[in-house]
Amino acid sequence: MDKHLEDYSHKRFNILTGEWVLVSPHRSKRPWQGQNEAVNDEKRPEYDESCYLCAGNKRISGDLNPKYTGTYVFTNDFAALQSDSPSFKVNDGLLQAESETGICKVICFSPDHSKSLADMDVPGITEVVKTWQREYKEIGSKDEIKYVQIFENKGAVMGCSNPHPHGQIWSQSSLPNEVSKKDTTQKTYFADKKSSLLGDYLKQELNGDRERIIYENDAFVVLIPFWAVWPFEAMIAPKNQQNSILDMTEKEAELYADAISVLTKVYDKLFNTSFPYSSGIHQAPTDGGDNGHWHWHMSFYPPLLRSATVKKFMVGYEMFGTPQRDITAEGAAQRLRDLL
Amino acid sequence: MDKHLEDYSHKRFNILTGEWVLVSPHRSKRPWQGQNEAVNDEKRPEYDESCYLCAGNKRISGDLNPKYTGTYVFTNDFAALQSDSPSFKVNDGLLQAESETGICKVICFSPDHSKSLADMDVPGITEVVKTWQREYKEIGSKDEIKYVQIFENKGAVMGCSNPHPHGQIWSQSSLPNEVSKKDTTQKTYFADKKSSLLGDYLKQELNGDRERIIYENDAFVVLIPFWAVWPFEAMIAPKNQQNSILDMTEKEAELYADAISVLTKVYDKLFNTSFPYSSGIHQAPTDGGDNGHWHWHMSFYPPLLRSATVKKFMVGYEMFGTPQRDITAEGAAQRLRDLL
Ligand SMILES: O=P(O)(O)O[C@H]1O[C@H](CO)[C@@H](O)[C@H](O)[C@H]1O
Ligand SMILES: O=P(O)(O)O[C@H]1O[C@H](CO)[C@@H](O)[C@H](O)[C@H]1O
Repeated sequence: MDKHLEDYSHKRFNILTGEWVLVSPHRSKRPWQGQNEAVNDEKRPEYDESCYLCAGNKRISGDLNPKYTGTYVFTNDFAALQSDSPSFKVNDGLLQAESETGICKVICFSPDHSKSLADMDVPGITEVVKTWQREYKEIGSKDEIKYVQIFENKGAVMGCSNPHPHGQIWSQSSLPNEVSKKDTTQKTYFADKKSSLLGDYLKQELNGDRERIIYENDAFVVLIPFWAVWPFEAMIAPKNQQNSILDMTEKEAELYADAISVLTKVYDKLFNTSFPYSSGIHQAPTDGGDNGHWHWHMSFYPPLLRSATVKKFMVGYEMFGTPQRDITAEGAAQRLRDLL
Repeated sequence: MDKHLEDYSHKRFNILTGEWVLVSPHRSKRPWQGQNEAVNDEKRPEYDESCYLCAGNKRISGDLNPKYTGTYVFTNDFAALQSDSPSFKVNDGLLQAESETGICKVICFSPDHSKSLADMDVPGITEVVKTWQREYKEIGSKDEIKYVQIFENKGAVMGCSNPHPHGQIWSQSSLPNEVSKKDTTQKTYFADKKSSLLGDYLKQELNGDRERIIYENDAFVVLIPFWAVWPFEAMIAPKNQQNSILDMTEKEAELYADAISVLTKVYDKLFNTSFPYSSGIHQAPTDGGDNGHWHWHMSFYPPLLRSATVKKFMVGYEMFGTPQRDITAEGAAQRLRDLL
């Protein structure tokens, strides 16, 4: 790698979003006198009677959870998107708005209140993967749903209000901002080169000096992308192009679960804490269009920077200018690799 | 206003960035069981001997602050951008990077450790405005500086590590992401209509039912933009187009300080706490180009949603999809107006 990237402030280009990130490798020596995050790493019980996601318990809506044993999916009791609202458009001079309908669901990963993905075994995570596939397929098959966003907020610092292992799906009638950007870049590249933008990038990483690669198995690679924003941001992607998670074979679903397992475990080791993050899958829209240019991938955006209590704040400059990071992608990958 | 916007999930278009925000007005009833922020509203002393920003004190770098009486500006001891680094480019297949140089400064707003902008009087804030003008002019006149980002992180929850009233300037050799977006939208509109995009929007707001306007004086308007992302996000802008803060007359600088004073005071009243936010000024780049399409404005992005301890988390869906808000811009403006 160009040695300049280790020593001097520079910007790197995100080929998927078309945006930049500012990297300040020299800045990691800055002392921290700001806010410390609260950490709660107490061992949780396998069942908590006050948890509204535990099997058999009552939710705020009054609904009762079944005594589920694997994963469990239900419609979000406080859905941000409604499925039954009227269609409307506001086009009043410079005020522009449009109705947005959709379906929001919650996915419990396991009945075991004490576990996170990092603590679950690969067969258990494979069940989660299969649930994502089922939901993506079912929700995505509805006419009015053009995109199905699967994500997880883990940890109180990431706005997660319940430690029971769970993720969410928000699906909607148009493409979200981030998906639109990646749709455009991938489409342009695919039209031009007849190959996958992300696939070609992964090949370059796999055949290069591999300094950003954390782990690989037969079907997946886990790496810190060259343009990562969050200190230990990582991506899991199939080596060969697949448009969506429906393209995986049974075996590949297990290998994907293996990749998730390896990454989440190494995350927990890094600062010896249940590592907070938001993760999400970007994949082909369900808009019925030709999405042959899509190469699905899962990203993890973890906020911690130096320890279990010191996070990276994406604030003033980052909000008004460009996301900024203090450690390089290569340095972060090295640290995670060393913990494998 | 179209009544649908009060009741149903919808998206609104940001004319300045070209991006959408998802609005879920029905969702504000959601109970909150997640993380509470720590609040420290203890009255601070006017001088704190352990504060590295107080007059006469020693900084971490070993440098001594002068016994300043008004504002005080110095180069950031842990600058994210360096001014003396070599120029380089990485263009290696799908890995693209470029050197980014710049100057980072810290601006103490007042020697009084106990105050924030909300507690300062209008002449004191006018001094801050004049300091911003001086710095924008001086830094922006350097050949290698194409953009001067003025901002403030206020409050521990916004990553601010010292409560002494201060802001920052990060200036650099290319346009940051957010500025680029606004440059494009304003340029396109200006070329087409021969008038300012933001100016025309402000006219529409001022001549309409004024439901998003919080305050105005002879030269400035304070409002919640139609497309606001953060719960109580607000914007201060000159009613008549000005490309940068250098276009203000002496009188207008005072009126700008008045607008800042009114907004920050009302913010503090809302949840009866020293209101955290990141604020920033977007204005004409200093790239020597024709920036006649720019209309400068200052935005405030405050994270609090329901109380001094409950913030809005921009996490999973927001990071992977689109920013989302639970209360409408109109409802937020009403609440702030009621506290004037
Ligand atoms: O420069 P400070 O105040 O030490 O740091 C704060 O503001 C910077 C600019 O928005 C951010 O990069 C940091 O994450 C934040 O903690
Ligand atoms: O849906 P939850 O877990 O209650 O809420 C959490 O995730 C949502 C989706 O990212 C965010 O909009 C909320 O701000 C956050 O607290």
